[in-house]
Amino acid sequence: MGYGTVGSGVAEVLNKNAASIARKAGDELKVLRILDLRDFPGDPFEACLTKDFNDILTDDRIQIVVETMGGLRPAYDFVKSCLEAGKSVVTSNKELVAAKGDELLKLAKDNNLNFMFEASVGGGIPILRPINECLAANEVSEIAGILNGTTNFMLTQMIEQHMDFDAALSLAQERGYAERDPSADIDGHDACRKICILASLAFGKHVYPDAVYTEGLRKITLEDVAAAGAAGGVIKLIGHVKKVADDKVQVMVAPMVLPKASLLSDVNGVFNGILVRGDAIGDVVFYGQGAGKLPTASAVVGDVIDEAKHIGNRKSLFWDGAVDGYVLPADVAEMAYLVRLSCDDRQTAWAEVLSAFGDVKAVSRPDAGDNELAFITNVMSEAALNEKVSALRGAKLISRIRMAAL
Amino acid sequence: MGYGTVGSGVAEVLNKNAASIARKAGDELKVLRILDLRDFPGDPFEACLTKDFNDILTDDRIQIVVETMGGLRPAYDFVKSCLEAGKSVVTSNKELVAAKGDELLKLAKDNNLNFMFEASVGGGIPILRPINECLAANEVSEIAGILNGTTNFMLTQMIEQHMDFDAALSLAQERGYAERDPSADIDGHDACRKICILASLAFGKHVYPDAVYTEGLRKITLEDVAAAGAAGGVIKLIGHVKKVADDKVQVMVAPMVLPKASLLSDVNGVFNGILVRGDAIGDVVFYGQGAGKLPTASAVVGDVIDEAKHIGNRKSLFWDGAVDGYVLPADVAEMAYLVRLSCDDRQTAWAEVLSAFGDVKAVSRPDAGDNELAFITNVMSEAALNEKVSALRGAKLISRIRMAAL
Repeated sequence: MGYGTVGSGVAEVLNKNAASIARKAGDELKVLRILDLRDFPGDPFEACLTKDFNDILTDDRIQIVVETMGGLRPAYDFVKSCLEAGKSVVTSNKELVAAKGDELLKLAKDNNLNFMFEASVGGGIPILRPINECLAANEVSEIAGILNGTTNFMLTQMIEQHMDFDAALSLAQERGYAERDPSADIDGHDACRKICILASLAFGKHVYPDAVYTEGLRKITLEDVAAAGAAGGVIKLIGHVKKVADDKVQVMVAPMVLPKASLLSDVNGVFNGILVRGDAIGDVVFYGQGAGKLPTASAVVGDVIDEAKHIGNRKSLFWDGAVDGYVLPADVAEMAYLVRLSCDDRQTAWAEVLSAFGDVKAVSRPDAGDNELAFITNVMSEAALNEKVSALRGAKLISRIRMAAL
Repeated sequence: MGYGTVGSGVAEVLNKNAASIARKAGDELKVLRILDLRDFPGDPFEACLTKDFNDILTDDRIQIVVETMGGLRPAYDFVKSCLEAGKSVVTSNKELVAAKGDELLKLAKDNNLNFMFEASVGGGIPILRPINECLAANEVSEIAGILNGTTNFMLTQMIEQHMDFDAALSLAQERGYAERDPSADIDGHDACRKICILASLAFGKHVYPDAVYTEGLRKITLEDVAAAGAAGGVIKLIGHVKKVADDKVQVMVAPMVLPKASLLSDVNGVFNGILVRGDAIGDVVFYGQGAGKLPTASAVVGDVIDEAKHIGNRKSLFWDGAVDGYVLPADVAEMAYLVRLSCDDRQTAWAEVLSAFGDVKAVSRPDAGDNELAFITNVMSEAALNEKVSALRGAKLISRIRMAAL
């Protein structure tokens, strides 16, 4: 369902690697129907195309349905109907999984079917199955990821080419990485959906996007980038989840300063990287192309093969419904901050900062000028930070960026 | 079977994370017997310990056996007997899998059992299951890995601290990374077993270690490290396999110069990194701790959970037996080389090199002196390289290191 970039990639991969896929699936996989409202004259799969969802729903030969339409409606209704009709489903649709994953997983379970979505996070990078199966012996404590290639491309341009935000966005649009309306990427919504899926899977309870503090890239300036560099780090847009108690997680999407030594600090350009921290395994990092037609299609088809091997036999991908109070409010999360202030009188302002914040680590970027103060705070809540900053009389906040402890 | 570092880690992880493991496995997992010839007075699992393999073999309650003894004998006989007796097996023993994987996989298949060995490559890094399942839709073309933490630690010391080979080895021994007899690590045998397992899994036919050209670290000098640096790269011990035709693979273990831009060039210290190149997915990299008690135990227990979920129900991990002529002889593999020569007369020697090699890229490291020539060749076979080098009259080979195209 959905014959766009990913959907046509799925058909292409199924076709091109048909022999080895049949060997791995234990059966030949055949594309019977493709749902799309558009016409594709001359397309190799033209004979399969239909505009009527019922052609799929009522066709008893169809055991596995792939949803690559994107968006919540009508994808949700179609997937739900397929599961109710006894068909297993694979989707690449992160919006759908982040909003309705718990419900659809339950429906799949009740019907002894599989609902899989490896492609919804990290494109072609294997991440959900490794967390669910390979790292099953671990208590995962934390997951952090560069989950959006568009914003990572923009930040890489800002860091390496000193291009400002607007120029980096234009370049990303020119190269086809960013949409004309780029807000899903640059405001962090895309990364938010993905960290919700990772959090739900790793810790067993659904986390909805609207429960997650989400800060995008719009406010990041070249001065912030330079200050982060002077502090020995790079700014990345990080989706982060951490278990803070048995029934509490801290989840957020925000630009964060990563120390250069972090495994994620070298993930540049449109690439994604995801770090999983477990009690037994330590840190494991998965790295690769987080989007693109064939990488994403490859993840979808990997799921299709797995579902074909498990017809009538469920795999254990599952999480429970959301629970009130499970996600900590963002402003109590404790982190260190890189703070930049403007001031008229440096010496007075420093004295005030030191008395308000106690020990801080001064950061001096080249070209900062005499009216800027920059420093790294101790670990504190955002509420505490805000209070201290607003009480300053001789200095005003320019920006504050979280320091990642990764 | 085997209550050493990894085995005791397995018992510890099973114990510590028992509740979440039971939830994931769908059943409580209980350690019934532990085989070891040693005594462990006061050990929490003391009551389970036995010195008699038959206590495991004839105990019908035991459905899954974990082998962490290492070495080929008696591990092979024990594992074989367990599979023949209807017990699924998990092992961390790379020597066993590299030497007998095809036979044991066939035995498991014939008995409708599972034989799994995620921990045998990359310690706790999920790599075999992602290749087998998540990347199933891809035609994998190539796998390259830093597969041995000990030698990677040594090389990192040589590159970053300018420590020579002997000093780096002593430090690795002091820290417990290298054995008193370090040859399995530094001669490349450990990496060789791991690339054999990866090659067998990715391309479907067993590759035996003795069919694989294996060159270790012993000859690498600080001058080589400096020349690689001057060429814009770093030396890493790489296990590499590449499909070169439908029924041919090129496999080797050797020190190689990786360009700084390579995803593997930043894998430092005792860490492992494995790059998988697929037709649909592009490059994916898996990174983490390649050894250690708890990371390795975590991978073993991940397999145990998967086997517990699949009692009486096989997973599709399998490859065929070895085929004569399937592994290309190493000296026909075509690569570029970093060559260092000594000469009496620089100008004459350069002229001779240029006429023998055609276009080369000169490399000049600081402190090379007037008697050294260094350059990067075009892509050629080792046989061709050897012929050209031995025909030189005014220069003699100091070293030649392969250039990795990764």
